[in-house]
Amino acid sequence: MRDVAVIGVGMTPWGELWDKSLRTNFVESALLAIQDAGVDKVDSMFVGSMSSGVFVGQEHLASLLADYLGYGPIPAVRVESACASGGLAFKLGFLEVASGVSDIVLVGGVEKMTDVNGSEATYALGTAADQEYECFHGVTFPGLYALIARAHMETYGTTREQLAMVAVKNHEHGSLNPLAQFPFKITVDTVLKSVLIADPLRILDCSPITDGAAAVVLAPVEWAKTLKKPMVKITGVGHATDTIALSDRRDITSLDAVEKAAEQAYKMSGRKPSDLSLAEVHDCFTIAEICVTEALGLFPKGRGGEAVEQGLTRLGGKIPVNVSGGLKSKGHPVGATGVAQIVELVKQLRGEAGPRQVKDARVGLAQNMGGSGGSSVVHILEKM
Amino acid sequence: MRDVAVIGVGMTPWGELWDKSLRTNFVESALLAIQDAGVDKVDSMFVGSMSSGVFVGQEHLASLLADYLGYGPIPAVRVESACASGGLAFKLGFLEVASGVSDIVLVGGVEKMTDVNGSEATYALGTAADQEYECFHGVTFPGLYALIARAHMETYGTTREQLAMVAVKNHEHGSLNPLAQFPFKITVDTVLKSVLIADPLRILDCSPITDGAAAVVLAPVEWAKTLKKPMVKITGVGHATDTIALSDRRDITSLDAVEKAAEQAYKMSGRKPSDLSLAEVHDCFTIAEICVTEALGLFPKGRGGEAVEQGLTRLGGKIPVNVSGGLKSKGHPVGATGVAQIVELVKQLRGEAGPRQVKDARVGLAQNMGGSGGSSVVHILEKM
Repeated sequence: MRDVAVIGVGMTPWGELWDKSLRTNFVESALLAIQDAGVDKVDSMFVGSMSSGVFVGQEHLASLLADYLGYGPIPAVRVESACASGGLAFKLGFLEVASGVSDIVLVGGVEKMTDVNGSEATYALGTAADQEYECFHGVTFPGLYALIARAHMETYGTTREQLAMVAVKNHEHGSLNPLAQFPFKITVDTVLKSVLIADPLRILDCSPITDGAAAVVLAPVEWAKTLKKPMVKITGVGHATDTIALSDRRDITSLDAVEKAAEQAYKMSGRKPSDLSLAEVHDCFTIAEICVTEALGLFPKGRGGEAVEQGLTRLGGKIPVNVSGGLKSKGHPVGATGVAQIVELVKQLRGEAGPRQVKDARVGLAQNMGGSGGSSVVHILEKM
Repeated sequence: MRDVAVIGVGMTPWGELWDKSLRTNFVESALLAIQDAGVDKVDSMFVGSMSSGVFVGQEHLASLLADYLGYGPIPAVRVESACASGGLAFKLGFLEVASGVSDIVLVGGVEKMTDVNGSEATYALGTAADQEYECFHGVTFPGLYALIARAHMETYGTTREQLAMVAVKNHEHGSLNPLAQFPFKITVDTVLKSVLIADPLRILDCSPITDGAAAVVLAPVEWAKTLKKPMVKITGVGHATDTIALSDRRDITSLDAVEKAAEQAYKMSGRKPSDLSLAEVHDCFTIAEICVTEALGLFPKGRGGEAVEQGLTRLGGKIPVNVSGGLKSKGHPVGATGVAQIVELVKQLRGEAGPRQVKDARVGLAQNMGGSGGSSVVHILEKM
């Protein structure tokens, strides 16, 4: 297997983009990534999208996007693993280059979520859960994460304020990211007084509905060396699944798929949590970030809330988490999120992150998750 | 890269399966394949499904199915390329084994199409076309293929009767397949008098709406040799895309994605059309089979209709096409079709196809197509 580098990244501003279609969003980000990579051709492409069929009535997505990029007849694959679709597309792109099947691979993620109304969007997001055994009985995604939050609070003493502090931190980071959907600061008080969605989660505990795309270009490290640019290598890859339904888990505060995916990625890269300069993790809800940082081994089980309170995960802290603003402030166009995490890591590792730059960033981890943890992919990237 | 074999196949009867959910259909076929393979574990899995989100409101599909098979936490990937989703899942499964990432890989395809009504199904299938530039203006899938049929008739003199003969042949084959949705014979007259759908295509020119699944198990050839069973090796793999919209093609009677995918598969396997013992091709409409057999090089351009009339593609003919009954008689649960083609080839190459056995079958080709030809995958399998 060959070593693989990320040689280009591209992302346009996220938000409620009513004047741009899914294909426009994707193509704009893809062209930025290709321009950044400085390549004039792509051998194949992988696209992550969770539910373009339900959101905009369009499947056959990878072929359509290859077509609109002018890249047909290249092989194009769309992969889906709910909100982990982007990260999974990245994993498959990595294998495509590592195995020698393709040299230059475009990996993109995209979702157009605001062409439907709120209840339709809630239905579409519910397709990531067990439709027949969870959603059928009325539970929504905020409802599932509210159950996790309540269990975490009861078992480990995590406080309502600590949950809010995740949102406050990520908005503080996001205020430094010009591509973020909500680039402004909030306070714990704003979160606690925001409208209740699913007790104990309030609207400011939830990531938003977002239109957006992100793209990266991969190539063999040997080839990338000729580019005379800062080199970012993929050193760790992990991917695992768990039960779809929360009720089937051994413990709903534990994310086994994240733990197992992280274990694989740490093993492959020879890295451990204390080696990380930063992590981009799946904070679809504030409680998710707390559970994920524990599953990644950044903090002991049950201590994720405390870590946020102590400022350990802030920019400048022990291990900055979601310096991009995370899903919470940057936005969460589901299929694009996993690829955007890679975009942020590459910018940070290249030292191009401007006011939110993590000092001397050398090793970054990206963790992307489907549904309530039914699947997860973890990648480790390093500056060479 | 390692040589890869198909060591197990599984498929349950297809049809309007109102008493079985998507997950039940999938798991039943998968367990048959695993039993046939004689393995007690699977390292990873790939699932092809076109539009489980629109049909049954369920995404996050591969994780859900790994969960219901009891195989979590294995990595599970769902891929989508419209009606070519199953064939594409097979391609990725092949690469997973060939590259050495996994040893035993389960590849399955599934679609549950009858939980929605006819107009909803037409909408769902339209997601394989260009939603914004084709479907928005009112064209349906039968409409797109009717345009192709009309152009083929005008340009090459293909007759209405020759189209009907494709359906008659495939139903004759399907009458020998106990798993087929419509295992009965029809006549040219029945087709010509059946209800008009999109001129010149009548209902008996169209593949049906079907519930069903199919699954296969892959392993390295070296490992498969220990099984002491007839060995079926994957010798050729091809995958290409074309414009999504028919209006963007250089010639709507030519399927460039099929031609390019076939070219790759022939080159990799060192085979040519005259080496083939049989072919399973994507006859979503009668005209599709004619265009595909031409694109595969089985017959000269424009002569596909004549070939059917001369009986060249019948069981016992020069190159039997769709001896399983094809999409037309066996059924077309879109995401499952590409995997079911592989199931048929393996049964034929092992000599286990009963009354529809192709005599001395040694080399088989499977061709699976998305939309009106926006993507296609071609595989060549050989008896070792």
